[in-house]
Amino acid sequence: MCTGANYTTRDHYFGRNLDLEFSYNETVTVTPRNFPFEFRKTDPMRTHHAIIGMATIADGYPLYYDATNEKGLSMAGLNFPENADYKPEVAGKTNITPFEFIPWILGQFETVGEVKAALETISLVDISFSVDFPLSPLHWIISDRTASITVESVKEGLKVYDNPVGVLTNNPTFDIQLFNLNNFMHLSKNPPEKHFSDELEFDVYSRGMGAIGLPGDLSSASRFVKVAFTKMNSVSGDSESESISQFFQILGSVAQQRGCVEVSPGKFEITIYSSCCNTDKGIYYYTTYENSQVTGIDMHKEDLDGTDLVDYPLIKGQQIRMEN
Amino acid sequence: MCTGANYTTRDHYFGRNLDLEFSYNETVTVTPRNFPFEFRKTDPMRTHHAIIGMATIADGYPLYYDATNEKGLSMAGLNFPENADYKPEVAGKTNITPFEFIPWILGQFETVGEVKAALETISLVDISFSVDFPLSPLHWIISDRTASITVESVKEGLKVYDNPVGVLTNNPTFDIQLFNLNNFMHLSKNPPEKHFSDELEFDVYSRGMGAIGLPGDLSSASRFVKVAFTKMNSVSGDSESESISQFFQILGSVAQQRGCVEVSPGKFEITIYSSCCNTDKGIYYYTTYENSQVTGIDMHKEDLDGTDLVDYPLIKGQQIRMEN
Amino acid sequence: MCTGANYTTRDHYFGRNLDLEFSYNETVTVTPRNFPFEFRKTDPMRTHHAIIGMATIADGYPLYYDATNEKGLSMAGLNFPENADYKPEVAGKTNITPFEFIPWILGQFETVGEVKAALETISLVDISFSVDFPLSPLHWIISDRTASITVESVKEGLKVYDNPVGVLTNNPTFDIQLFNLNNFMHLSKNPPEKHFSDELEFDVYSRGMGAIGLPGDLSSASRFVKVAFTKMNSVSGDSESESISQFFQILGSVAQQRGCVEVSPGKFEITIYSSCCNTDKGIYYYTTYENSQVTGIDMHKEDLDGTDLVDYPLIKGQQIRMEN
Amino acid sequence: MCTGANYTTRDHYFGRNLDLEFSYNETVTVTPRNFPFEFRKTDPMRTHHAIIGMATIADGYPLYYDATNEKGLSMAGLNFPENADYKPEVAGKTNITPFEFIPWILGQFETVGEVKAALETISLVDISFSVDFPLSPLHWIISDRTASITVESVKEGLKVYDNPVGVLTNNPTFDIQLFNLNNFMHLSKNPPEKHFSDELEFDVYSRGMGAIGLPGDLSSASRFVKVAFTKMNSVSGDSESESISQFFQILGSVAQQRGCVEVSPGKFEITIYSSCCNTDKGIYYYTTYENSQVTGIDMHKEDLDGTDLVDYPLIKGQQIRMEN
Repeated sequence: MCTGANYTTRDHYFGRNLDLEFSYNETVTVTPRNFPFEFRKTDPMRTHHAIIGMATIADGYPLYYDATNEKGLSMAGLNFPENADYKPEVAGKTNITPFEFIPWILGQFETVGEVKAALETISLVDISFSVDFPLSPLHWIISDRTASITVESVKEGLKVYDNPVGVLTNNPTFDIQLFNLNNFMHLSKNPPEKHFSDELEFDVYSRGMGAIGLPGDLSSASRFVKVAFTKMNSVSGDSESESISQFFQILGSVAQQRGCVEVSPGKFEITIYSSCCNTDKGIYYYTTYENSQVTGIDMHKEDLDGTDLVDYPLIKGQQIRMEN
Repeated sequence: MCTGANYTTRDHYFGRNLDLEFSYNETVTVTPRNFPFEFRKTDPMRTHHAIIGMATIADGYPLYYDATNEKGLSMAGLNFPENADYKPEVAGKTNITPFEFIPWILGQFETVGEVKAALETISLVDISFSVDFPLSPLHWIISDRTASITVESVKEGLKVYDNPVGVLTNNPTFDIQLFNLNNFMHLSKNPPEKHFSDELEFDVYSRGMGAIGLPGDLSSASRFVKVAFTKMNSVSGDSESESISQFFQILGSVAQQRGCVEVSPGKFEITIYSSCCNTDKGIYYYTTYENSQVTGIDMHKEDLDGTDLVDYPLIKGQQIRMEN
Repeated sequence: MCTGANYTTRDHYFGRNLDLEFSYNETVTVTPRNFPFEFRKTDPMRTHHAIIGMATIADGYPLYYDATNEKGLSMAGLNFPENADYKPEVAGKTNITPFEFIPWILGQFETVGEVKAALETISLVDISFSVDFPLSPLHWIISDRTASITVESVKEGLKVYDNPVGVLTNNPTFDIQLFNLNNFMHLSKNPPEKHFSDELEFDVYSRGMGAIGLPGDLSSASRFVKVAFTKMNSVSGDSESESISQFFQILGSVAQQRGCVEVSPGKFEITIYSSCCNTDKGIYYYTTYENSQVTGIDMHKEDLDGTDLVDYPLIKGQQIRMEN
Repeated sequence: MCTGANYTTRDHYFGRNLDLEFSYNETVTVTPRNFPFEFRKTDPMRTHHAIIGMATIADGYPLYYDATNEKGLSMAGLNFPENADYKPEVAGKTNITPFEFIPWILGQFETVGEVKAALETISLVDISFSVDFPLSPLHWIISDRTASITVESVKEGLKVYDNPVGVLTNNPTFDIQLFNLNNFMHLSKNPPEKHFSDELEFDVYSRGMGAIGLPGDLSSASRFVKVAFTKMNSVSGDSESESISQFFQILGSVAQQRGCVEVSPGKFEITIYSSCCNTDKGIYYYTTYENSQVTGIDMHKEDLDGTDLVDYPLIKGQQIRMEN
């Protein structure tokens, strides 16, 4: 389904895999400060932080999948079927629709701390964008350089979890995902230690055996453990090239290969795109399933005081560099 | 350590991950037909099939890691520590050193069938290339369009296994790797079926749950299962772009991220490069750990009747395509 | 730690493993109808249902671990460390101490349905039996012939879960234990089906391979899955001998062998006793770690209209029947 | 299928689970010293060591499943389908049929060392006992107080493996079973250590988590790992009651519960009996699936200089000790 993560070297990076069996013509979309954001049940924002991220533009409105604002705050929505539960309008609350949630947060806040405070008065209201764009069941990861949270609107209400791992996949609810990591606490980047018996001899016949037990299937619970292990153990130089490469390697550890997950006969879930935004510099990088070259868009090269969306269609075919 | 695989769409592809904590200045190297191949204990080849692949050139000799000849026969050597056992020179056998094995095979044969016949009189002799290049403990995967074999020189002698999966990693010996797949025969690209109990309700809460139990650690036994599952279930269009992309996705499923396998304090095994050769067209593609763009070299654009090696140093930094 | 379960053939059976590193001189204890039950914060019961079960008798009071009343309602308390959270006395609620919970429930109710209704007004109050018997962190399984529930007093309050599996172990909370079964829904008593690949041959080299993936360690989450699988697939004749034997086999599948779980240096958790009560006939059977012979006590052979506890010390040494 | 093991406290114990879906009227059978042992292709033994064990007596011949001789040497045959390969009669070898193998070994040897020497000239010949008792595909564990070996007659010939674990189950071949233990070397009786990440907090929420990853299904490869872990970590007092109890606990860790392995519709493999022989005292103990009381037969209470087999039918119903 999907995997989101953040990562810090010298700069802070935030991105995600979008895993689906189809594509909605998503583009890298820059929303400048004076693009007028309307909201269905609360006041519009005439001016706001500029935003860059992946979005489907529908009726002139950027439906963001994942995005970062010019202050470095980032947010991604990931599939959360059966668990996501949006509410009827609640009096006395700020009622935000799920499709407005990323613009409303990134339009005005700079830090996760500010977001946490604001979420105390928020309700996610069950209003869809249009007949063509019904409500998606989502939950969200929101990160700045120093902290991440996960937001889930479930039957019991809006839950806000500190996310010390800085990754998110899909079901089950985040508390169970985090609890489940306890079952893997012994996994190690180092060779396994011998505890089975003092009287037997064992052979460390391969490198990597310290992490035996790490799951490799593509279910959301297994991807959570795998990407958490990969991220928490990641080592990287801090140049832009090294950092980006490591980030895409982290996401690659839970990428979905065509054929491994059959959704319906002949339909396969794949990693449509992987993104990595340098949230300090406002540069959004991505690869696609078929195009492994990194493409980049720098928000600061656009007119951020403008009023119109700027969007870059994805480059999807393999961009081969022939040497002869 | 390493993973090799082949894959067929319209054309046939062969490649590998090289997983190590250091690099030997390997380059994409084309050996033309008239490059003189000397062998330590058998007759030289004055003329032979042209070869393209990844090699370290030492004293003018191409020490191939993986390669394909102009007839489409391919071969890769993968690490096989503790198990590889090379022999003293044997009278009555063709004594080939491990570092000569790829040139000797690819120089003269066109099919796996021919190779199997030739292997009956071969012994791998324990002679190293030089003081600086001691013997590597290796085993090999050899593939043409229709079949693959694995060759292992072990204590008991030279073993040649049919390789119906068309993948190879490292330890243990191939018979055990293949046997171990039996323990995973139930894994599926489809959602899990309910067999636990008729009286309980279960929730298929995520896509991909049909493969729960697939290992995700980076040990050689786990990579064998994971890459076998990914390859055997792979679905791809048959264009060059789609085929290459799928092949790199297959290898990506068992790539090694820096930090996950610590070899010695501060030293980490990573996927130095991934290769994918279109064995029908003689085009060798690769990516490196930090450069995810595919780079290609076409053997047929070189003078294949020449006598001199042609080599292309690897492009290693991330090649970002900025859109603005 | 512990495992509880119920099972139905012609009669209904209920029992548990008590897994600990020490024993509290527990005895099989019959409480007759006119034994006066005092409660710390609510009215005493002068007369009540007769009860049989395992208890430590302290100051004349039966501290039951697991028990069944003459109406066939059964209940067991199992360790629930870190999660159990008992409350200060709450006005307007019936405040029951954890050590009174089994007598209070079994003393007056006949069915799980009645218990569920009563639990709506209950609060488990944080009063210990004495300085020598501090509060144990527990949760409970309550079963009649047709239904089971799990009761957990946690930080958020008193949770009552339907328990369709009819088993209980320890941590984590019951909702997570039940959710976790989804990850094992494919496990089967039948041989594995081949889904990995149509192109490879696999060998079902052993019986029992359909349940590969079933955990075998002794942690509470793993025991929950293992005992659930064993119970849900159990097949038994319906005689008393066959039924009891099958029940002890189910509990045996998650028994704790001395040495496998070291609690502190030289201290090992073991299955102190296993119990199996025929809840229809009021006969309580048990085995101990060292005595595998089944010992039985029939509550109906005691004076159930009496006022005094009757207790049978456990027979703990192996009772070998020598044939010559 | 089956599990064999040995264990040493003050005395040495040897036994096994017989896991099948049917029973052959096996009895505890004592063969005295002067019972005439005929062999199909080698000389008879007119006098020999006395033997006690479980056997089906057919046409007056004890077909032993597992047995111990008066010198303390023990041997058990376990199912080894598809792998066992018996040979045509070989000139120059001592040709022993599989059904004669236990009497031939236990009749004359005292130690594993002697057996190893004798096996150098042995061939297991493909002659069945009778039309009604065709050849069983078996392999064997042979133990004395200080060592164990495994004997397998496979396509390549007779293999004799040192067995440092002192356990045996069924397929695959013993070298693979032993190799597979490497994948579990990190399993521990102690709580798991935190290696996943220094930056995250983990909760050891249950005892026993140090062995997470230990398999619990009933396939032969999984039982090998589980029983090896249980045995190698076993702790026991050295009295007869404690030792026997611990031994049956070890075997119980891999017992087969009715319903968990369906062999054909409505037919289930179960642990028909578990045995434990005190090999120093010559006392053979057993339990059955339905009779958990330990029954014992002491070979030294029989006339060991006799000529006739003595057999004790199994006591199979649950032997309940009612206390009131």
